[in-house]
Amino acid sequence: MTRSAEPISGIDTPALVIDLDAMERNLHRMAAFARQAGVRLRPHAKMHKSAELARLQLAAGAVGVCVQKTSEAEALAARGIDDLYLSNEVVAPAKLVRVAALARSLAARGGRLAIAVDGAEGVARLAEAVREAGAALDVFVEIDVGQGRCGVPPADRDPVAAVELARRVAASPGLRLAGLQAYQGKAQHLRSPEARREASAAAVSAARATRQALEAAGLPCPLVTGAGTGTYALEAASGVYGELQAGSYLFMDRDYADNAADPAHPPFEHALFVKAQVMSVGAGRAVVDAGHKSHAVDSGLPRVHDPFGRRAYAFENGGDEHGILRPLGGAPLPGIGETIWLVPGHCDPTVNLHDRYVGVRGGLVGGRVERVIPIDARGALT
Amino acid sequence: MTRSAEPISGIDTPALVIDLDAMERNLHRMAAFARQAGVRLRPHAKMHKSAELARLQLAAGAVGVCVQKTSEAEALAARGIDDLYLSNEVVAPAKLVRVAALARSLAARGGRLAIAVDGAEGVARLAEAVREAGAALDVFVEIDVGQGRCGVPPADRDPVAAVELARRVAASPGLRLAGLQAYQGKAQHLRSPEARREASAAAVSAARATRQALEAAGLPCPLVTGAGTGTYALEAASGVYGELQAGSYLFMDRDYADNAADPAHPPFEHALFVKAQVMSVGAGRAVVDAGHKSHAVDSGLPRVHDPFGRRAYAFENGGDEHGILRPLGGAPLPGIGETIWLVPGHCDPTVNLHDRYVGVRGGLVGGRVERVIPIDARGALT
Repeated sequence: MTRSAEPISGIDTPALVIDLDAMERNLHRMAAFARQAGVRLRPHAKMHKSAELARLQLAAGAVGVCVQKTSEAEALAARGIDDLYLSNEVVAPAKLVRVAALARSLAARGGRLAIAVDGAEGVARLAEAVREAGAALDVFVEIDVGQGRCGVPPADRDPVAAVELARRVAASPGLRLAGLQAYQGKAQHLRSPEARREASAAAVSAARATRQALEAAGLPCPLVTGAGTGTYALEAASGVYGELQAGSYLFMDRDYADNAADPAHPPFEHALFVKAQVMSVGAGRAVVDAGHKSHAVDSGLPRVHDPFGRRAYAFENGGDEHGILRPLGGAPLPGIGETIWLVPGHCDPTVNLHDRYVGVRGGLVGGRVERVIPIDARGALT
Repeated sequence: MTRSAEPISGIDTPALVIDLDAMERNLHRMAAFARQAGVRLRPHAKMHKSAELARLQLAAGAVGVCVQKTSEAEALAARGIDDLYLSNEVVAPAKLVRVAALARSLAARGGRLAIAVDGAEGVARLAEAVREAGAALDVFVEIDVGQGRCGVPPADRDPVAAVELARRVAASPGLRLAGLQAYQGKAQHLRSPEARREASAAAVSAARATRQALEAAGLPCPLVTGAGTGTYALEAASGVYGELQAGSYLFMDRDYADNAADPAHPPFEHALFVKAQVMSVGAGRAVVDAGHKSHAVDSGLPRVHDPFGRRAYAFENGGDEHGILRPLGGAPLPGIGETIWLVPGHCDPTVNLHDRYVGVRGGLVGGRVERVIPIDARGALT
């Protein structure tokens, strides 16, 4: 087990390591951005799954955090996070009982739970659970602004659907219509700033039309919430979105770094790494002790990060427990036991593979372990 | 929490479900095969990570189990599994201290630990740890029989490397030369039986040449161990391999099912499923509550399994927490709350995402929950 004040060399591998200095710069840069833009920041905690990191975000000005699962909400609420938005649909009756109970207990301590809906059946089930528990809940109507996943069509594609659903929410005792959930996930990783701008503009336009349709129908729409690390500045400037849900900015993974940056908004720094070590050296290759079980590969393989900036290796798939390094540009093969730092392809599912972060201070070269941070909602799937 | 004797409809989603009847048929079919073929079976427990399932394999005739990580070995040993083979290299001094301690404690209770090596530095470090602990260990020399990952070249490619390494092992006090580790991972998912036969034949030939080279040098080679679910029957018939390490046969994932079966060896049955449910229905699509955090996608997406055999859906990537279903062949859209069964693309890293299996008896239609099985080594990465 990693102890505090230990040197980085003492961290057993594979391990999920946060460069705390880099993370804190990311934290404050996004917080300052939201403040200056005049929008609320509600980072998505499905990314880090940690009450301690959520508290840092709240201390820096976030109004609360988003979660994606009922059990994630429960895990963070149990560790003192009071303002939670379950930005997803929940339809299973047994889970809705838990949602309603959580809404009650958060309200009792001055907090708040919100949730998203995208269908009449879901609203009816939610209303029943809330009624039976004597609870109350903020409800966002989710509209599909281009992702093609959950959400009713926005008003520029269907003048009736969102208004009709919002009316059901407003008419249900215990459910407060809180606005629109409008996240365009597919826009986040479009590589060129122009393509992201185009996709975000379409999402903004759809959200604006839907808000207008609600208001024209006499329904309140106090808040449009959405946006991610790839497009946050665009939604912030839209005049439509009042809240940003970006999450990955805190850690910045390889997939986000592969976006061509918008010159107006410099990219965040890599702050999350898998520490691995060389366990085998063969002809033209070295093998490290980290594979699919240490880093998620849904968004591609990790990138090898050399904190010294001297050596380059390509990372190849070595299966569940291994990764294969090929030297690039004449780099020498690393030796047995040598430390290798990997920038995960996608931070969210990588975090979900680990029980804890090892937070280091003073950089990856010469720094020291400052503290271990539990990943409280690791495996919170339901 | 899922209770025993509960109907399947009561299992919260997403959940990792074992069809116990199908799993037991797979278990006994492989055990009977190994018995008839006259080879030892040492299933790879990196796949299921469960002491309870390892015990079932031992009761059916397995000589022990393989693991891939020191912490996996510790987790299973702590739950009563006594004969463990760490079929991988361990080079970190702090981990080798644990390896040596585990070897001692297993030996003290009549068990045994074995490990693989593929380099002089690894042997030296292992020998030192074993000496300091006063332990003894069986050691297999790993040869690269075509996977291109760990292992020294076999004797048909390099007449010196394996013999030299085996000699180092044999000369190290506390290390007993136990034979050769010769796993051809790349052969397992070649789609045609002919291609698998060709790759396995090359591995067999390389292992045979290396065994002969060891014997010619006066070194013992009591056992060649390797093989997986895609090629086990070939290595079993080789006259070279004395032990099979197949693991996935117990659950049988989508990737193995995509292999064209060898007519002589019918495929195993799907016994592992992710139970999901429909949480959103839109135009031409339904969305389920299981994504990358519930099933690994390194070997492709899961396949939708209809236990009724009536409806077909294509599964599309919906991100970390969602999956998107598209009806095929005129199937109707499923309704909100409907149960969907997914066959994971790759069982090993899917299992590693969950804390427990829900074992059901009597099939996925009308069966009941029999017991919950802990995934003891979930997240055992080091």
